Amino acid sequence: MEIKVLENVLKVNEELAKRNRDFFKKKNIYSINIMSSPGAGKTSLIVETLKRIMKDTKAAVIVGDYTGKIDAKRIGKLKIPTLQIETASCHLDANMLSQALKNIDLEKINLLFIENVGNLICPAEYELGVNKNVVILSTPEGSDKPLKYPLMFFISDVLIINKIDLLGSLDFNIDEVKNTILKLNPKIKIFTMSCKTGEGIDNWTTWIKSELKM
Amino acid sequence: MEIKVLENVLKVNEELAKRNRDFFKKKNIYSINIMSSPGAGKTSLIVETLKRIMKDTKAAVIVGDYTGKIDAKRIGKLKIPTLQIETASCHLDANMLSQALKNIDLEKINLLFIENVGNLICPAEYELGVNKNVVILSTPEGSDKPLKYPLMFFISDVLIINKIDLLGSLDFNIDEVKNTILKLNPKIKIFTMSCKTGEGIDNWTTWIKSELKM
Repeated sequence: MEIKVLENVLKVNEELAKRNRDFFKKKNIYSINIMSSPGAGKTSLIVETLKRIMKDTKAAVIVGDYTGKIDAKRIGKLKIPTLQIETASCHLDANMLSQALKNIDLEKINLLFIENVGNLICPAEYELGVNKNVVILSTPEGSDKPLKYPLMFFISDVLIINKIDLLGSLDFNIDEVKNTILKLNPKIKIFTMSCKTGEGIDNWTTWIKSELKM
Repeated sequence: MEIKVLENVLKVNEELAKRNRDFFKKKNIYSINIMSSPGAGKTSLIVETLKRIMKDTKAAVIVGDYTGKIDAKRIGKLKIPTLQIETASCHLDANMLSQALKNIDLEKINLLFIENVGNLICPAEYELGVNKNVVILSTPEGSDKPLKYPLMFFISDVLIINKIDLLGSLDFNIDEVKNTILKLNPKIKIFTMSCKTGEGIDNWTTWIKSELKM
């Protein structure tokens, strides 16, 4: 019974995701959904990206968290429109996103970052209707994660390997991870970076600008 | 509707967890449920613990993973009875555990480790009926995690702060984390360790032995 209900929920979600997609297209908003384990660097990625491109874009951020406002406060310091959703569940869904969109002045933005709940499983099952799904894998999590959470790496358009500043202290094998992921998802675009030192972030921001046709 | 179904599911789960608890008591098996984010070190903790106490105990391991058998293969090398459950969902539940128990020769064991699915949210909602719930927080995940996933830290009996070998490269503040957690859950027992270097593991294994009245 539980499975049947879940199927219905996912079907309704898919419909709502399609509506979000049409809506973003109509409003000319480029939307990026960022997913990862807790602590892999979703908020840091958004903050460091905005620091580099906020002058040239009109960005807003929607942050999904199980509870609390810690991430929204960090991002809000940049004076970018930021909205926190307290999900009380393990993922954002298309309905939560469409409700949140009603609280942002969409005429004033062309770029939307969505920070999903820290979880490598459920967010992969709930499509939001965004332009790009991005998954962050941080080096301390280990090279085996793509094989253990394949759906997440399969549905993502972009993989960011973060925390490369820690590589010297870890057994993480970047080439092994890239090979594994490209077998699962040959079209995925891969960036390696450290949001702490800034190494590699420019390749990613250059790519976002090219997506925005800047 | 979704919420009502979930309430029913959780209620049934609670009943089954109670049965598991009675069962463990009857069979004289001490059971430990280990939870964390992906890559925080659940498998490493089990492997390093067993290396130190397997001669003195009769242990078995049940491993829950969304998919695959990577963790069970790592643990199985120790020649300890190991059973993998592929959950295809974001948590283990009491029913999955009771089904798995049918496949282990319980007369021969007195200690059971259960490795839950890598996720800080859902496993906290599904009680298993074990003696102790253990959560691992690894230092690269950041000091803010207890505030963002409070239920997990609230329902756990033991907190293991892992990967302390990386402290020199991170902004992680152990005292801040301990203070935050002790406010949420004053009774929680805290161990700090590195499963990589071995530092601090002995305090944890000594505690397990005392729990087993050895």
